[in-house]
Amino acid sequence: MSFLLITGNATLDIVNVVDHYPQEDEEMRAEQQWTATGGNAATMAKILAAQLHRCDFVGVIATDAAGDCIAATLTEKSVGLDYAPRLTGKSPVSYITLNQQNGSRTIVHHRAVEELMADAFCQIPVERYDWLHFEGRNVAELAKMLAYARENIIDQPISLEIEKDREGLEALIEQVDLVMFSRAYAHKQGFMDAEIFLRDRQEKHGKVWMTCTWGEQGAWAIDQLGEVFHAPALRVNVVDTLGAGDVFNAGLVHALATGQLLEEALHHAVKMAGRKVAEQGIAL
Amino acid sequence: MSFLLITGNATLDIVNVVDHYPQEDEEMRAEQQWTATGGNAATMAKILAAQLHRCDFVGVIATDAAGDCIAATLTEKSVGLDYAPRLTGKSPVSYITLNQQNGSRTIVHHRAVEELMADAFCQIPVERYDWLHFEGRNVAELAKMLAYARENIIDQPISLEIEKDREGLEALIEQVDLVMFSRAYAHKQGFMDAEIFLRDRQEKHGKVWMTCTWGEQGAWAIDQLGEVFHAPALRVNVVDTLGAGDVFNAGLVHALATGQLLEEALHHAVKMAGRKVAEQGIAL
Repeated sequence: MSFLLITGNATLDIVNVVDHYPQEDEEMRAEQQWTATGGNAATMAKILAAQLHRCDFVGVIATDAAGDCIAATLTEKSVGLDYAPRLTGKSPVSYITLNQQNGSRTIVHHRAVEELMADAFCQIPVERYDWLHFEGRNVAELAKMLAYARENIIDQPISLEIEKDREGLEALIEQVDLVMFSRAYAHKQGFMDAEIFLRDRQEKHGKVWMTCTWGEQGAWAIDQLGEVFHAPALRVNVVDTLGAGDVFNAGLVHALATGQLLEEALHHAVKMAGRKVAEQGIAL
Repeated sequence: MSFLLITGNATLDIVNVVDHYPQEDEEMRAEQQWTATGGNAATMAKILAAQLHRCDFVGVIATDAAGDCIAATLTEKSVGLDYAPRLTGKSPVSYITLNQQNGSRTIVHHRAVEELMADAFCQIPVERYDWLHFEGRNVAELAKMLAYARENIIDQPISLEIEKDREGLEALIEQVDLVMFSRAYAHKQGFMDAEIFLRDRQEKHGKVWMTCTWGEQGAWAIDQLGEVFHAPALRVNVVDTLGAGDVFNAGLVHALATGQLLEEALHHAVKMAGRKVAEQGIAL
């Protein structure tokens, strides 16, 4: 198993399960509610640790009660927090409306605490890790972290998740080995076809491995030779898509870190995401 | 000034202000966030106390941190809590998405604690109050509370808010003097016109005073002789409709309790609600 460094966000997720998505101005009851530790990087770290990788999470954890809870959950799941700074402030919270009819998850995120700064990251002995993964956020600081990582590792892979449109983020692609795009991001760039999107991005940013998830159509990947692979989604009854992207990304890192080829890894990741959306929550 | 008993719900409101209402499955950031003590009855009690009425709130307050906070806020606003039972459990929370473009408030409510039971209510020396108001919920228990109140008061008015469709609720109208209906409720009964709705309900339930709010069209009222009044809404830039119904109801009770006629009270209540929707939050 590998030793992984996962950098990004940890949040408190408050999930309200509803029997339909509320119309604007409606007032309705939640059928069910739970809270969980969320955030893309923290969720990936939990899943990878459950697959018996050694896994360190780097990201800000606030000093409030929710932060204590997030830290306790990650520790319980064997995620290392030695490099996760505890900063004064309120934990970021994602208020999630989960429609049990179709598994859609609508997220209103509130964030008041500082982002992870490169100063904190650049204390980490990154050379010890077999794989480094980054959530694509806070672009200016992330650029410094990637530069520091590149200087201090030999040839360990670096992966980058690009889920949301943030100015300057794509310029960082040249620093990494694998980029995970989301369908929402491809749509925002004006693409309605994953393969065309991936070819276009590779033309722009060079021969980097890239993936793009595409919901009920599965996911696509492109390798350094420009070969495109597609893995169709499992046919399941979709009940909860929350965190499906994180499960996909974790599945991909797991498979690649354990020696699978890109095409195999893509199929593995899609299968894991398919199992996830068929069940409520993320079983670890 | 009067001595008022306000019976119903107290909640923690978590208000996320957004720049548009999220599409289903979207992920977005809140521009701003605040928490406040909400719930229709608790909000009415706060407003009426701020207008210098003596005001007691009766409703379950949970024993968790949010419940402490709700109790502290009400006490600070001079709302009496002598008859509000503190029960073990989690405070009800309303997760509110406030669209700053048009002031709409979409509410997903989560409730785990017990409702107020008639046993607790029937300990209250109701004869001391000048006015008794009830939120229309928990029908079976509410019927017992109304029967107890009727037995123990002389001729003090009783008002009832009917905001949501709950089985058997309309049968209680004959026990009260004033019913406040919401537009959402009238719509649910198949009515698109407030006046026709009020005439229909009076025909069904007898010569009780009734009002119905109608958003940007103001509100309507019908008196015991079947005369219908309309008060048009103020022309304001709507930024926050959260609690507008509670402000209307409080305005109505305030005006009637201080001797105004139904028509005057309707205009006063509509004006108060109009001022509220033009401002963020409820200034007390």
